[in-house]
This record gives sequence, structure tokens and C-alpha cells, in this order.
Amino acid sequence: MKSYRLVSREAKTEKTLVRVRDAVFGGERVVVIAGPCAVESREQLLAVAVRVCRAGACMLRGGAFKPRSSPYSFQGLGREGLKLLAEASAATGLATVTEVIDEASLELALDYVDMLQIGARNMQNFSLLRAVGRSGKPVLLKRGLSATVEEWLMAAEYIVAEGNGNVVLCERGIRTFERATRNTLDLSAVPLVQELSHLPVIVDPSHATGDRRLVVPMSRAAVAAGADGLILEVHPEPENALCDGVQSLSPDSFDRLMAELQPIAAAVGRVA
Amino acid sequence: MKSYRLVSREAKTEKTLVRVRDAVFGGERVVVIAGPCAVESREQLLAVAVRVCRAGACMLRGGAFKPRSSPYSFQGLGREGLKLLAEASAATGLATVTEVIDEASLELALDYVDMLQIGARNMQNFSLLRAVGRSGKPVLLKRGLSATVEEWLMAAEYIVAEGNGNVVLCERGIRTFERATRNTLDLSAVPLVQELSHLPVIVDPSHATGDRRLVVPMSRAAVAAGADGLILEVHPEPENALCDGVQSLSPDSFDRLMAELQPIAAAVGRVA
Amino acid sequence: MKSYRLVSREAKTEKTLVRVRDAVFGGERVVVIAGPCAVESREQLLAVAVRVCRAGACMLRGGAFKPRSSPYSFQGLGREGLKLLAEASAATGLATVTEVIDEASLELALDYVDMLQIGARNMQNFSLLRAVGRSGKPVLLKRGLSATVEEWLMAAEYIVAEGNGNVVLCERGIRTFERATRNTLDLSAVPLVQELSHLPVIVDPSHATGDRRLVVPMSRAAVAAGADGLILEVHPEPENALCDGVQSLSPDSFDRLMAELQPIAAAVGRVA
Amino acid sequence: MKSYRLVSREAKTEKTLVRVRDAVFGGERVVVIAGPCAVESREQLLAVAVRVCRAGACMLRGGAFKPRSSPYSFQGLGREGLKLLAEASAATGLATVTEVIDEASLELALDYVDMLQIGARNMQNFSLLRAVGRSGKPVLLKRGLSATVEEWLMAAEYIVAEGNGNVVLCERGIRTFERATRNTLDLSAVPLVQELSHLPVIVDPSHATGDRRLVVPMSRAAVAAGADGLILEVHPEPENALCDGVQSLSPDSFDRLMAELQPIAAAVGRVA
Repeated sequence: MKSYRLVSREAKTEKTLVRVRDAVFGGERVVVIAGPCAVESREQLLAVAVRVCRAGACMLRGGAFKPRSSPYSFQGLGREGLKLLAEASAATGLATVTEVIDEASLELALDYVDMLQIGARNMQNFSLLRAVGRSGKPVLLKRGLSATVEEWLMAAEYIVAEGNGNVVLCERGIRTFERATRNTLDLSAVPLVQELSHLPVIVDPSHATGDRRLVVPMSRAAVAAGADGLILEVHPEPENALCDGVQSLSPDSFDRLMAELQPIAAAVGRVA
Repeated sequence: MKSYRLVSREAKTEKTLVRVRDAVFGGERVVVIAGPCAVESREQLLAVAVRVCRAGACMLRGGAFKPRSSPYSFQGLGREGLKLLAEASAATGLATVTEVIDEASLELALDYVDMLQIGARNMQNFSLLRAVGRSGKPVLLKRGLSATVEEWLMAAEYIVAEGNGNVVLCERGIRTFERATRNTLDLSAVPLVQELSHLPVIVDPSHATGDRRLVVPMSRAAVAAGADGLILEVHPEPENALCDGVQSLSPDSFDRLMAELQPIAAAVGRVA
Repeated sequence: MKSYRLVSREAKTEKTLVRVRDAVFGGERVVVIAGPCAVESREQLLAVAVRVCRAGACMLRGGAFKPRSSPYSFQGLGREGLKLLAEASAATGLATVTEVIDEASLELALDYVDMLQIGARNMQNFSLLRAVGRSGKPVLLKRGLSATVEEWLMAAEYIVAEGNGNVVLCERGIRTFERATRNTLDLSAVPLVQELSHLPVIVDPSHATGDRRLVVPMSRAAVAAGADGLILEVHPEPENALCDGVQSLSPDSFDRLMAELQPIAAAVGRVA
Repeated sequence: MKSYRLVSREAKTEKTLVRVRDAVFGGERVVVIAGPCAVESREQLLAVAVRVCRAGACMLRGGAFKPRSSPYSFQGLGREGLKLLAEASAATGLATVTEVIDEASLELALDYVDMLQIGARNMQNFSLLRAVGRSGKPVLLKRGLSATVEEWLMAAEYIVAEGNGNVVLCERGIRTFERATRNTLDLSAVPLVQELSHLPVIVDPSHATGDRRLVVPMSRAAVAAGADGLILEVHPEPENALCDGVQSLSPDSFDRLMAELQPIAAAVGRVA
């Protein structure tokens, strides 16, 4: 009765490796993606990029097109943000990922970044899923706020069915009654998805918890649960961030987190 | 701290009337939209259109572009479906509404239908919201599966901020732990939205309950709660429907429902 | 695979009538229970009792043992509250219902009230369910905050299995992600329960919405959905209530509500 | 605006140590409690006790009074089960914990076990909370199925306010829309509770996931998140268990799990 086929373990028993330049999702290394919620300026992005690169991150994240609940919130720098991502990538060697929100932003992003992110709110934007599928670029597919694991895998199926098998899943918290955290991080989804599918799966503790004090322990927990990677918000000055400052780590905190992840990764036979 | 402005009662105290040809949302009449989940064929659509028109429906619904969880499910007839809607409209005089899922389907739909529907899965597809805003056509904005009332109103704000004030909100059930119904119809949202906003709000008991036995009592309840309208799935042969048959009414059941609604509407000072 | 037997429609096709003195749940009349959240004083209770009786309520509610999230909140007057309920009943002729929270309060309540309420937090307190079952008194069984309809019916089964068939179910809202209302009133549960079970089912719009502005429209909606009754919080001075003032109606508002319910009840073949 | 006082970090900054014979919750050691869902027989319980003791568990669990959704399901051996727990404790030296569901079972349990468990369904059974508070015995307080972290801490406050500070909190999954797991394990609650309260907090991955394949990775994750302990279901023959077999580990699997936990615990400065 499963609705997904190509992404299932039945279709392919060995785990899929998704390569984004030097980063390989699904292998021995726990791939850490880090960077600001939104690209705000050249100074901000380069400062973060240099620091997360030095600390051991494999990829740089940064939003250029921000889907915001309110039309009056900061919506991102657009093409300018993409150019800054490309510049930060050239300066550090880090591969980049950014969210695309429609065909126009997808078209632009193809020229500047290495991986396309589909955000939680667009997980069932099937036209966009097909479009990133046709693009052939690696895709980071976030789980929808109230998507079941089955619906999430079916969203991945839309991409893979277009011939693009380079899909990395990302658990980022689901919406529940609990108000003390921004969302409820469903870490059980990590081993569950790994049973059901051959696709790599990573975790976003920043959006899931919305609270930087919880990001460090939940990053450790994600690696212990077997996650293939992490995506983390890091900002040079979290208190001045244009979005999501309260859940962003400072570069110094990120350094400490990376150090703490090593022994956990080793304990589960991985490298962080 | 509210993020919405233009759609709030503070911005405009009198209720907005949204006109779609002869249908007026927000006035004395409870506007009933009826028709099949998906346009399947000329015979099916015309048969339903004639019956729901005769029973007193004000508008015809029918999906031409179906957002489906699985890429392998029936995805709709596309432009052919739109043409059939236009033909059914010409034959009956009913105004029409259909869901648009991206800019391409929006472009097509503009030529054939009277009102554009944004489905639950696209409630925070902000590019699409802006696009239907720019189109100037009346918009039926469904509440997202896990959208708060505030987020729903902010989605409407995206449309109105483009200069298109012709927005009708539609409560269609939210996702909860309860499995005995497809979704949980949040009928309290109707009077709540009417307190907070001047926009009309209607109810979709078909998608909310997923069970035709519950559609009739919940339609009565929606009218008693003060809903400005209903949108209902009616199929000539529910047992053979290509989608959502289990929640579709037969034309005969729809006749009985329309008769049952009259005294309820009268009891709350409305006409059904 | 159903776990309930005695409460199912299969076990008994005709609807159960539960009699509490003059009040009959499950018959033509929509039984309205009204009164304060908590019994606070002789003056308060008698003032409310006289007013709700005059307005047409069939039963008086009032908490003497209050289950409160915090140990430091007002916990009810206990036996003194029960005596006041009995006095108010004698003065007005109204039958009474109060919540019991353990065997001690149950033992006390048996001497003073006509119907025992099991609150949402105790819906799966199986020892207490069995104890009220053995008591033989009519029971008002509220749905748990996160109980499925199936679990709710199984809780009723615990009572009926002790030989006490006088169970009235009460939908009082479920816990969801939505924060604009205290709970989400699941009105679809009313016709659903009536399909599955022969037991009467009533609705508590006060606890469900937590907002007196929503109590009136949701009371109308409950009657239109086919509810066998309502339980409503009424306080002589809502703004000074020791608990739940924000969701309590004033006696004048209750008068108006009762008047508004008549035509809705008539529209569904009932009397309010 | 917090409703809890005694259990808060403001009231007591240093972490509380809860001693149950040799087991100490809140210290360096990650306390592992293991045993069957229900005590079924002398053979079953002793077999499990010997195995989990040998593998390094600190305490033995086993239900004698089972709160079951259906009155027709196995309800536990009662006093006979308690005697078997005491016998298994004598044979292995393991301290024991069992669930109490009312004052009668509490009275009985006091004579036979070392720690009292309050189950999820009774988290807001305030009479029972007060009673275990008065007993002075260590209490394991499970989080309710839909309890917020704040409500959970207030439930603990009820116990501590009776003068019993020996409370250990237990996260066991919350109820959400996701159906692929029995509940959604909210692991973020572990570091969050540790910020807010000085009480130890452990995790129950068996009930949370309902799937033994997920128990191992989620146990690792819980330790990495900083949990002060684990409670795990182990059955000599999971496929023949009278309850919850699908989520029970075999003794051999438990051996492997204990071995896997060591390096994770070491990585976070703990001992497993």
C-alpha cells in the first residue's frame, strides 16, 4: 500500500550517497552544514563562512529567498544574496545550499549554488518538486510542518521520479501542542526513514527547537541517532540577526559544538 | 503584535462582500459551492452541474490541477478540465472556482474560471499568493493543514497587499491526532475569524471529515456557527469517483442537504 | 477490531435515554446544563441557579472538587460546595452534576448530587471509571484532552461494564497546535459518536473555546450538529470568577443564548 | 508567571539526586531500568531480571497494575505481581519500580517495591499525585500523552509540595499526528527540563516509539541529549508478550544496547 517506490529500500537496498562537491551525504562522515538563516551582507556572510569552515563544517547555508509568514518581514536579498554565497564559497571552498521558493528563484539559484533546498512550507508544492527534479541539482528536502514520514517520502518520490536521485531528507521538527519549543524535533524519524528509504537524512536542530540552548544537546542526540548530517544556524552576532537570532549559535559556540560531536560520532562509527 | 493589517477588523470594520458573478460572499445569503473533487469527463461534470444548480448551489467547483501526495495518483485533466468547467458554466449559469497550483496553471485558469482556489498545501506558497493577488481575480484561500488562524490571516494579507481584496477564507479541517475523521473541522475558527477580520469565511465539510455521513450534520453546524458559505463535493456516482469518493455526496443527498439548510439559515438570520 | 462492545450500536440499535430526575438525555429535548465553573459561595450559586432555571436550563453544574494544573490554584469548596449544590437544587428544582476526582470525593458526592462528572484529565483513570460504574448514578463522561473517539468510547465501556448504562458523553475540545482557542472543539465527534454508539452525547463550548464570544455561535453549531445537550459556564459576575471567568457567560447573555437556540433546535427536529 | 516553584531551578540551583537503593538518578551514572511491560509469571520475570542485571541495568521494572484502554485487556497480576517483583529483587539485588493507579494499588505497592511510577494517563490525577507525595517513596513521574512541559513540572510540584522531593521525571513520547510511531519522542524536553528544573529526567524509548527497531538508536540519542537514565522494556520472548511485545527488546538485544551505550555516555561525560 506504500505510495513511494523509487525511494524505498525495496527498490534499492544499499544506501544512496549524495555528493555535493567534496561533501558526501550518506557515507562515514557526518556532514555539517552551517551558516546564517539569511544572507544579510557581505561582511556577515564571509565572517561566518570563514569561521564555520575553520571549525570543520562541510557546507555553507544562507537564505537569499526567505518564505516569511508575514509579507512585511525581511524577504531576503535575492540575487544579491546568491552572489554573496558564491563569493563566500570561492573564498572558503565550502559548497553551498540555499532555499528556492518558486521557478524564478530556482532558475537564479542554479547559477550560483551547489544544492537546492525545498523548505518545510513547500514540501508539498508539487510543481516545485518536479522542477528541482528536472534541474538535476542535489536537493535538500525539508519535512513539512505537519507531514507524516510517508508524505515526506512521497515528496522525495516526486523529485526522484523526474530522474534526480540526489535527494537528502531533512528532519526539522513537526508542529505539536507543545509551546516551549518552536517545533517538536522528531528524532525517531531518522532511524525510521533509514529503515524505509535508501536516501540520506540529516537534522536541523535550530529550526526544530528555536532555542540555541537546546541546539547543542539535540545536535549530539541527532548524531547518536544515526543522522547523516546536521544543518545549523550560525551568525556572527546572533542578537542582531535579521531573522531567527534566538536559535542561532555564535561562531564560538559552533566551535565548541563541533568539538563535542567528535566523540559522539566516533561512538556510532562515524566521523564528524 | 499582529502581523496582519489590511485584513484586520481594525483596518475595516464593515464586512467585505466578495462578488463572483451572481454569488456574493459575506452578505445575507449562505453561498453554496458544489461539484466534483476532480473534473473527470464532460458527462460527469455536466450531470453534476445541472443537478447542483437545480438544488440551489450558487457556484460550481471542480479540480483540473490536483495536488496529490503521490506522483502516481490522477493529477487532473489540466486545460481540458478548465474548458469543461467553462462549458458547464455556460450551460447552467453557475460561476466557477478551480484550484491553481503554480504560475502556469494560474495563467491558464484566468481564461476559464471566475474564482481561483489556493489549496491547503499551498497556503504558505508566498509566490503563488502574490501571483493570485496580482491577478485581481477573486480568491478562495483554504487554511493550511497545520496553519494557525493567525498564519491563515497573514496568508490572506499577502494577497490583499497586492491590491486584491477579493479574498474568501475557507476552513477545511486541521491535522490532529484523531484518526476517525480525515481532519478535525475547526468550526470555532469561523466566528473567531469573523471577530478578527472583515473577510468572508466559508467551510468545507467534505475534506474536513472525509466521510459523507458527517458532511450533512457538519454543514448544518457550519451554517449555525455563522459561516458565509459552504463548499461541498458532489459526484454523480461517488463510488466510482477518481478521487475522494468516500466523502462525496450523491446529487440526491445534496438535494436533501440543501432542503435541511434552509431552516438553519433562517434561524441565524440568513438565507440558504 | 473494536475494543468496545456494550456501548456500540451493534450491541443496541435504539438510542439510550439517560434520565436525571426530570432531565432526559437522548430524547427530543436538547438538555442544557448551566452553572458556574466552581461553586464559590451560597450567594453566587443561588443567584446563578435561579437565573439559569428561569432561562430554561434543565440542570445545574458547579465544581466542588477542582482538578487544577497548579497545586496553588483554588481547589474548590469540597463538601461545603456539595451542600450548596443540594440547596440550590432544592430551591430551583434543578437536578445537579458535579465532578468527582477520586473515591473520597465520589463517596461524598453520592449524597448530594444527581449526576457524577468524570473530567477530561480523568477519562482514563480506570479505577475511578469502575467506581462510578459501581455507584449506579448517571455519569457525564468528558472526552480526554488527547483522547481518540475510540478511546473515549472504551472509557465509557469501563463504566457500562460495571452494570451502569447511564452514561452521557461530553465533547469538550481536544488539544491541538492552535493557540487562538483554549482547545479545538471537535464537533464532528458528535455525529460520529452517534453513528458508533447508542449513548447520548453533549457539548461543552465553554471549555472547548475558552472565549465567551465563541460560546454562543458554537452552542448553536452544536445543536445543529445534533448534540443531545450542552453544558455551559454561567457566572453572575464573570469578571470576578475564581476560575474560567473569560469563558463564562453572564446570566443576561445566557438568556439570549437560550432564545437563540430555540429556532436551531426546531430546525433539526428538537426542542431547546 | 510560572506555576511551579519548588521544582524550579530558581528554588534550587544544584541538581537533585534521587536515590533508590544503589541507584542514584541525577549523578554521573546513566541509570538504566529494564524489565517486562507486565509481570506475567515467576519464570518470565526471573529470567528477565537475571539477564538485565547481568547486562548492567540498575533497576527492574514490571507492571502489576496495568491501565489498559480496554476493560477486556489483561489488567495485570496485582498483588501476585508485586510479590514476584520482590522475589526477583531479592534474587538479583536490583531495586524495583512499578506503576500504581489508585490508592489501593499504592497501599499494596508500598510493601513490595522501591519506587512508585505514575503513568502517563495519571499525570494529572492530582489525588494520586498527592498520595504518592505523602508516601515519601521515590516517584517516577511519566509525562502525560498531551502534557506540556510546564504541566508536567506542575504535576511534579504536586508531589514535592507534599514534602517528597524524590521525583524523577520520564519523557515517554507525546501524541501527535504522526502514525508511523506509537508516539513522538520529544527528546528536546530532556535538556529543556534540565534548564527549568533540578529534578532528574529519564527517557522511555519503548513506549515512545512502539517499535523495537527504533529503541536502540533512540536510547543512544537520549543519552547523548543528556538524559539521566533510560527505562526499557525487555521480555524473554517478545513475540509472546501479553502486552507491548512489538516494542520489547530480547535479552540479547538488550546486551548489545548496553554495550553500545558505553561510548555514548563517555562522550558526554557520563557512565552507562
